[in-house]
Amino acid sequence: MTSNGTLTPSTEKGTDWIARAHRDHVLTSWSKQSGPDPITVVDAAGCWFVDSNGNRYLDFLSQLVNLNLGHQHPRLVEAITEQARKSCFIGPTFANEARSRLALELDALTPGNLTSSFFTTGGAAANEAAIAIARAVTGRHKVVARYRSYHGASAGAMTLTGDSRRWGLEPLTTPGVVRMLDPYVPGGGNVDDPRYSAAHLEEVLQYENPGSVAAVIMETVTGTNGPIVPPPGYLKSIREVCDRHGILLICDEVMVGFGRLGTWFGIEQFDVVPDILTTAKGINSGYVPLGATIVGAHIRDVLRDIALPAGLTYAGHPLACGSAVASIEIMKSEGVVENAATQGARLQRGLEELTQRHPSVGGIRGLGLMWGIDLVGADGSPLIPFKGTPEQSAPGLAVVKAAKERGLWIGRQDSVIRLAPPLIITADEIDLALSILDEALVHADEAVGVVR
Amino acid sequence: MTSNGTLTPSTEKGTDWIARAHRDHVLTSWSKQSGPDPITVVDAAGCWFVDSNGNRYLDFLSQLVNLNLGHQHPRLVEAITEQARKSCFIGPTFANEARSRLALELDALTPGNLTSSFFTTGGAAANEAAIAIARAVTGRHKVVARYRSYHGASAGAMTLTGDSRRWGLEPLTTPGVVRMLDPYVPGGGNVDDPRYSAAHLEEVLQYENPGSVAAVIMETVTGTNGPIVPPPGYLKSIREVCDRHGILLICDEVMVGFGRLGTWFGIEQFDVVPDILTTAKGINSGYVPLGATIVGAHIRDVLRDIALPAGLTYAGHPLACGSAVASIEIMKSEGVVENAATQGARLQRGLEELTQRHPSVGGIRGLGLMWGIDLVGADGSPLIPFKGTPEQSAPGLAVVKAAKERGLWIGRQDSVIRLAPPLIITADEIDLALSILDEALVHADEAVGVVR
Repeated sequence: MTSNGTLTPSTEKGTDWIARAHRDHVLTSWSKQSGPDPITVVDAAGCWFVDSNGNRYLDFLSQLVNLNLGHQHPRLVEAITEQARKSCFIGPTFANEARSRLALELDALTPGNLTSSFFTTGGAAANEAAIAIARAVTGRHKVVARYRSYHGASAGAMTLTGDSRRWGLEPLTTPGVVRMLDPYVPGGGNVDDPRYSAAHLEEVLQYENPGSVAAVIMETVTGTNGPIVPPPGYLKSIREVCDRHGILLICDEVMVGFGRLGTWFGIEQFDVVPDILTTAKGINSGYVPLGATIVGAHIRDVLRDIALPAGLTYAGHPLACGSAVASIEIMKSEGVVENAATQGARLQRGLEELTQRHPSVGGIRGLGLMWGIDLVGADGSPLIPFKGTPEQSAPGLAVVKAAKERGLWIGRQDSVIRLAPPLIITADEIDLALSILDEALVHADEAVGVVR
Repeated sequence: MTSNGTLTPSTEKGTDWIARAHRDHVLTSWSKQSGPDPITVVDAAGCWFVDSNGNRYLDFLSQLVNLNLGHQHPRLVEAITEQARKSCFIGPTFANEARSRLALELDALTPGNLTSSFFTTGGAAANEAAIAIARAVTGRHKVVARYRSYHGASAGAMTLTGDSRRWGLEPLTTPGVVRMLDPYVPGGGNVDDPRYSAAHLEEVLQYENPGSVAAVIMETVTGTNGPIVPPPGYLKSIREVCDRHGILLICDEVMVGFGRLGTWFGIEQFDVVPDILTTAKGINSGYVPLGATIVGAHIRDVLRDIALPAGLTYAGHPLACGSAVASIEIMKSEGVVENAATQGARLQRGLEELTQRHPSVGGIRGLGLMWGIDLVGADGSPLIPFKGTPEQSAPGLAVVKAAKERGLWIGRQDSVIRLAPPLIITADEIDLALSILDEALVHADEAVGVVR
């Protein structure tokens, strides 16, 4: 694809080898290596991608919720070529223009006293570093994490993770991770109940010994295992409990940072500043692997006297940092965060209408441009159980299939249809997605036995 | 710097902000954030880089032993700009040209039946995935690793690591890692003694229950904690012990893969094919963060029936994969691996001469273009103890300082001076480095009390 955004669908036979080579020589994440041949993507621009059969898809997942600027944004592509010509790589102990520039940008962009960044290659490493830092600066060893969470695939990050992908690591998880519940009840959706917030954390800490707890880590708004938008006051109450016990608060904004929720960072909407913020994905739309662990000045000051317990060959990678500087500049000059808020409101209104029209839709959950549609049965309980079998999941699979056949690329986790388009999406594209969803949801309605 | 390789040293005042911003807003790997201001690198090409004071350095560490093609290789830079224009990012479940092409290249390039790659963002994640795969396909939980090793910073990889950076994670390491000794004795150097190879591993397995051991992981030639070149027959004997007990052999070639030792992979020199090979760094000289976990066909076949217990947003990142395809092509067409062998032999000869001339040099260790100089006292024991204090380390620090003042960038670990230049290095550059080392080593000779 050319970088001017023109789609040139390719149906030439000459691409068959790509899927074949993938099947035989690439190991695909979290999958049995025996599924159907993968779809070959031959072209992509903006909110759209094209497969080798010429099918066009409106990417309503931003791939893995990382393409906040969409596919092949011309200015970001150009910035990467410029940075590549300037400096691809310098080791992390040297100072480098792109790295310092990004650190200054993040200092300015983040709220409160968040000021110093350890740069990684992605979200998992950012969370690993956050935990290592929290333990080093507090001298405590336990970390509290939630069930409905995903923090990454490496052993430390996976131990923090509540998502069932953790089961594969057990019992070889790292010690010291304690679990608390989420402000969410299966079937009941998000809940605003003190039993799920400060009081719940206080009770867990009481049993665990608060003096042994280094940090509480949570996604500001839960992504893959959600969406779970914290009820009003939730994060502030968690922050207060942490402060009372000298515990650090780590907000994982790997998925929601950089405009996903209609503000630069999710924490801005909840009036909370964590001690450590982790991020990745939207920081540069994933065009070059990059993550960041951003710490408050009070943490940085402690790290003047003790060695940072983290390091990576590719920490502060110039090509990655340069691309993030450019991405932030693009987001600012093109009003991308404002667009996320505007189009997010449009998407929300449309989804609320679908909720009225479809008996299989129990409700919607989300913020900005990250939304979930709760599929429910006639009795209002989840239509598909947690980790349902393919048979149990059939109605959800049917909705996703119908959407894809109509050119809308969406996701599903259990009974939740997941939506997260690029933040550059237009009103027309939002409306197109809504009209396709309207048709696709009929397959869930049929499963409920009530078709309008 | 322009990509034509011309150095344009900059001494303009306009770069002072870069080090200041780094000091205040970047957290530097493994360090107290209170050291002297970092050196700002303003320009780099080939085997050289230039700081903001106009000092030029011959990079005899390839930064972090990753720049096998040197700084800003014009063809690699150009390939990255081409790939950026084509496709920066597509999620890992889709097939993509750059990803499939790299997988085919690695299938062809690696010996034996190594055939399928899980692509990561670096070496740590590649080792995490290797362990997860080994445990999943064997149904066993223990892993044997060595003391003189570095496998990465994330919790799983750090637990495998013998290097003292592991101490910071303890006791929160993952369970199931068992330690064996290296074919090396402190003060005695590398040893060829069955007590340190097959017999030693057999004894450890006997006590651990071989039926509970999923894998043995080792660097083919130990990097940061070495160099330790395995004695003749060592790796074959380890392979045989593994086969006897149904244990997988994982060779970590994060540092030595892609020509560092004068062959594409280190294992070629020892006539051994592991079940899993991990790599990163030299795969694309680190111009874009990338690592790979390459498994044998027998492992891939098992993964047809059980889900891959690994996944990353940036797995198989197109920009990274595209840069690796180009890097391999450049290495082939420019004879880079052959050059590593040729210049490696020249470096070895020069270092052997230095050994004769300097009483502080007890010997040298290495292969290809990765070498260590053992500094010894008058009695032949290491001049600087393991994790020596700054006072104890003074002679080593003095050698490194003298070399840097003369424009040669080298490293040191305890009593070992570390050398690992880019594989594109010329005979003249090798000779220049040797002449500077000849002068710098006088500082160690003085500490021994014998100056020629």
